[in-house]
Amino acid sequence: MASPQEWHELAQQLRVDSIRCTTKAGSGHPTSSMSAADLMAVLLKSYLRYDFDQPQNPNNDHLIFSKGHASPLLYSIYKAAGAISDQEFLTLRTFGSRLEGHPTPMLPWVDVATGSLGQGLPIGVGIGLSGKYLDKLPYHIWVLLGDSEMAEGSIWEAFDHASHYQLNNLIAILDMNRLGQRGQTELGWNSRAYAARARAFGWQALEIDGHSYDEINAAYTEATTTKANTPTLIVAQTLKGKGFAEIENKEGWHGKALPPDMAERAIKELGGERHLIVKPQPPEAKQPGSRPASQPLQLPSYEVGAALATRKAYGEALKALGAARPDVVVLDGEVSNSTFAEDFAHAYPDRYFEMYIAEQQMVAAAVGLSVRHWTPFASTFAAFLSRAYDFIRMAAISRANIRLTGSHAGVSIGEDGPSQMALEDLAMMRAVSDSTVLYPCDANETARLVAEMADRQGITFLRTTREKTAIIYPPTEAFPIGGSKVVRRSEKDEVTVVAAGITLHESLKAYDQLKGEGLALRVIDAYSVKPIDAQTLLEGARATGGRVVVVEDHWIEGGLGDAVLEALADAGLPSLRVTKLAVTKLPGSGKPEELMAAAGIDAQHIAEAARALRGVAVAGD
Amino acid sequence: MASPQEWHELAQQLRVDSIRCTTKAGSGHPTSSMSAADLMAVLLKSYLRYDFDQPQNPNNDHLIFSKGHASPLLYSIYKAAGAISDQEFLTLRTFGSRLEGHPTPMLPWVDVATGSLGQGLPIGVGIGLSGKYLDKLPYHIWVLLGDSEMAEGSIWEAFDHASHYQLNNLIAILDMNRLGQRGQTELGWNSRAYAARARAFGWQALEIDGHSYDEINAAYTEATTTKANTPTLIVAQTLKGKGFAEIENKEGWHGKALPPDMAERAIKELGGERHLIVKPQPPEAKQPGSRPASQPLQLPSYEVGAALATRKAYGEALKALGAARPDVVVLDGEVSNSTFAEDFAHAYPDRYFEMYIAEQQMVAAAVGLSVRHWTPFASTFAAFLSRAYDFIRMAAISRANIRLTGSHAGVSIGEDGPSQMALEDLAMMRAVSDSTVLYPCDANETARLVAEMADRQGITFLRTTREKTAIIYPPTEAFPIGGSKVVRRSEKDEVTVVAAGITLHESLKAYDQLKGEGLALRVIDAYSVKPIDAQTLLEGARATGGRVVVVEDHWIEGGLGDAVLEALADAGLPSLRVTKLAVTKLPGSGKPEELMAAAGIDAQHIAEAARALRGVAVAGD
Repeated sequence: MASPQEWHELAQQLRVDSIRCTTKAGSGHPTSSMSAADLMAVLLKSYLRYDFDQPQNPNNDHLIFSKGHASPLLYSIYKAAGAISDQEFLTLRTFGSRLEGHPTPMLPWVDVATGSLGQGLPIGVGIGLSGKYLDKLPYHIWVLLGDSEMAEGSIWEAFDHASHYQLNNLIAILDMNRLGQRGQTELGWNSRAYAARARAFGWQALEIDGHSYDEINAAYTEATTTKANTPTLIVAQTLKGKGFAEIENKEGWHGKALPPDMAERAIKELGGERHLIVKPQPPEAKQPGSRPASQPLQLPSYEVGAALATRKAYGEALKALGAARPDVVVLDGEVSNSTFAEDFAHAYPDRYFEMYIAEQQMVAAAVGLSVRHWTPFASTFAAFLSRAYDFIRMAAISRANIRLTGSHAGVSIGEDGPSQMALEDLAMMRAVSDSTVLYPCDANETARLVAEMADRQGITFLRTTREKTAIIYPPTEAFPIGGSKVVRRSEKDEVTVVAAGITLHESLKAYDQLKGEGLALRVIDAYSVKPIDAQTLLEGARATGGRVVVVEDHWIEGGLGDAVLEALADAGLPSLRVTKLAVTKLPGSGKPEELMAAAGIDAQHIAEAARALRGVAVAGD
Repeated sequence: MASPQEWHELAQQLRVDSIRCTTKAGSGHPTSSMSAADLMAVLLKSYLRYDFDQPQNPNNDHLIFSKGHASPLLYSIYKAAGAISDQEFLTLRTFGSRLEGHPTPMLPWVDVATGSLGQGLPIGVGIGLSGKYLDKLPYHIWVLLGDSEMAEGSIWEAFDHASHYQLNNLIAILDMNRLGQRGQTELGWNSRAYAARARAFGWQALEIDGHSYDEINAAYTEATTTKANTPTLIVAQTLKGKGFAEIENKEGWHGKALPPDMAERAIKELGGERHLIVKPQPPEAKQPGSRPASQPLQLPSYEVGAALATRKAYGEALKALGAARPDVVVLDGEVSNSTFAEDFAHAYPDRYFEMYIAEQQMVAAAVGLSVRHWTPFASTFAAFLSRAYDFIRMAAISRANIRLTGSHAGVSIGEDGPSQMALEDLAMMRAVSDSTVLYPCDANETARLVAEMADRQGITFLRTTREKTAIIYPPTEAFPIGGSKVVRRSEKDEVTVVAAGITLHESLKAYDQLKGEGLALRVIDAYSVKPIDAQTLLEGARATGGRVVVVEDHWIEGGLGDAVLEALADAGLPSLRVTKLAVTKLPGSGKPEELMAAAGIDAQHIAEAARALRGVAVAGD
């Protein structure tokens, strides 16, 4: 065990370095780093079990800065551990540097991006689930929390789930420095209030002076050796800017680099620059729980002409995937009997985690499981994924590989009304970095896409439908991501109709109706909304004189229609006339067919739009 | 005070009616209604102070079903109060009926739409703030909570803020019926755990048998007469499906209507149909705190050629609006020194509510304030509004009138990195029912738009920029919502450039650059992203041979580019060639100009795109 003096020397180095790099950068958060330096010095020197040469060692502890703005402190730790050079350290916040303003996995020791507050702890819960129930390894997850972020509801979703799953491998350290961005936090230094809340949520809570090495040391010992089957919160009372009297515990110093002259005084007061190298304790050398070998995937297959809801096909395909692949794990937001994640849950309960109605925690847990290289699928009603949009956004910055499935898309859910209808999910999921957005129309297509999702990198979203839809594809058909299907075509096609999901079936009805009138439609199933199959869309548009109808069960903004326009808009077609059919008025309750008619997205409206387009003169006619 | 027998008769009627209407509809949630019938019978008959003939009476209590799926019970209450006829009551869930699957303000007694769980309580906090601090009226806010939704973090944001603001006018009734949608809830009947959590968050908590009229009555008396300056949670242990032995406390009956034969047996067991009419207690006849008369609005004005960040202009305009209009109230998520909501906060502290870092609660409180006809503005970083997307979605279904301002848009924020950059906010906010999306490029434009926001119905979003931008418009210029500005035009224009916010300034640089090359650009400031000024865009596109560049500091999906494409796509232009410049790769940290160059959205890239388009042959050339 190190001596208080050794911890102190390291802590002062972390403070000095947090100042050096931010003053060099001209921005950043030195004071939020200084408050937690003693906490992190003791952790690094005496408790963290981590091999910086092998960040992927499965036995490594995990260190997550939920208060991501304290990145100068985190990078100072990496420098102290010898993982990055002082030269690289001083590139903080410059273009092209791995040391971004807030941590991202551009650095191999960063598990996940933080900087949107309240996310590190729920992600830690996901890693904790992996450690305790899947990896079955004794690593700890250390999460540094800021006090401002304790106001985020997602923090309490994490407290709730961590105790429910008895995650005694999870240790949260609350850097209670009292000062938020614009003044005192809601609870200030009310350590008792934080501890009481944590205990009420089933945690062990320890209140300490965050600048007392003895108290920090005792708390870490207690947290790592406790026999209680609970996570631990350490409420550490600290001073923002600790160690430099000019700014210590003063308002107005959040997110500000010290000017060079001030930095010089501060570094002097902190005892000058140091360049200690501290190797943390090595991780244990245990083997993770062995995974059975993968088996050939036997997807369910469905007979053409039958009918099944794509959400049900999702559940059945997921179960099949679970049989083939031991890396697949599933989460759901207490609606697994609606999303049909229950098919997997019943078959593989050891790889299913019920997240109850806590969508933020659900997505965060998926991210955490992705950190440990599981293949998570998470599902709820697509409308309720909007609850977790900030987590999905951040998951993309974390370069996480997660799969989200949203059921009950659109007005076609019927009687339950608009609160349950996803009408913005395509827009939301398209506007995520490097995302994949899939929207199948039948059961075989769904099953194939579920299989493709398993190997897809990044954030992948599957939209499923509540109602039964006809099975139109044989089970042998392939559906590559980025592709589409031309479902109806002839040499005489006059209008191209692009649809996906339930509106594909309406388009086929419109096709049949117009065929009798001598108007031939080309019908394209754009099941891959992002990336979209621009080539097939262009071929269709070209073949039909630029006349295109796009129809979707979604708001008119940001969904399939916009994706199709983007594919066509810079192609230089000699003429282009796109009619977008989509939801534009707030729906109510009713039968699916009534609501689709009222929204103007049923077969009759598609036929009308196609007739109107035929009547329009376009260039080249 | 009523007798237990009277309460019982009313409760049985509410149960019978909950069954009748759902069996008639063939769907819905009778069992979730039956568990809370005793709680609601005592409330309606003996505690609720409400004039059903005057739902806008400012003295009325507020009754919010946070568990919106218990709508059959809510509608049964309205029937029992004589507010709706039995005939209308039985239209539940049919097309065109005001009685939707989940409550919406199509019914005048419903303050806000519910059905996405965990929202009713935080909205109740907003109404509570109004009652205690603005209206200064003694009404109570009664919120019926389901036990499943206690897993939502937003519930704990509400617990936190309600105690922080000492909302003793807020009474939450937890219908702890133990059964969620797919099985037992996380905490089952662990009444102590719920009560402990509430107390740790600073509430009074009472544990009762939710089917004992005496205990219900005593709890309501305690909650309405308490001298404690805290909100009250009543944890009521109940049975799902209470009153009909075949399904009482049984799994598998969530969200299912009883088949007709079963309904007949249930109604018999419950004592048959009743048609009691129960008028609740009248509200008090007090006057709300008088509001000073509105004053003429004196917006700040800025000199052309100077530079100011639009976020700062937002703050200054908001303060001016506050001086003119006593109905304006402001909320912020603990970043008011970045959004500049602090300008208002310092001037009008009585109409400013600090929401700390709890974006869901912030939006919910704005909705609650809108219920009481205040004019709320709420601000945070635009990226963090994604945290509250489900609340924004539901606010639109609530027909709430709220104004959201998101600062720090796009990669141009610079060094802080991608976690702080809003790159999806335009997509997200466009895909909201009847929303308005505004994105000004200078300080005078911002000030004018802030003034317009105050009178705008629905969900209005203003996107502001971190960096200073040049002031290009005189303070006298008007900026109607739905309009745009043609900032550069000539008879020789060859390419139209559409921009907004920071990219408008890059477009002007490109204009200057290309002018020297003899390539004339038409530059349009599309400050009103939704509704967009299709006519001006079409004129520009027509005048420049269909050659259009759209440039935005946002993901390429769902933002300004898609809005422009939508405006142009069905116009039947003889030719159209749109180049979208937008962010397509995950950015890191760096200087604003480095990041804009890397994203391909700076002046140089605009100029290149325009040159490339000029080189393209288009139809009609």
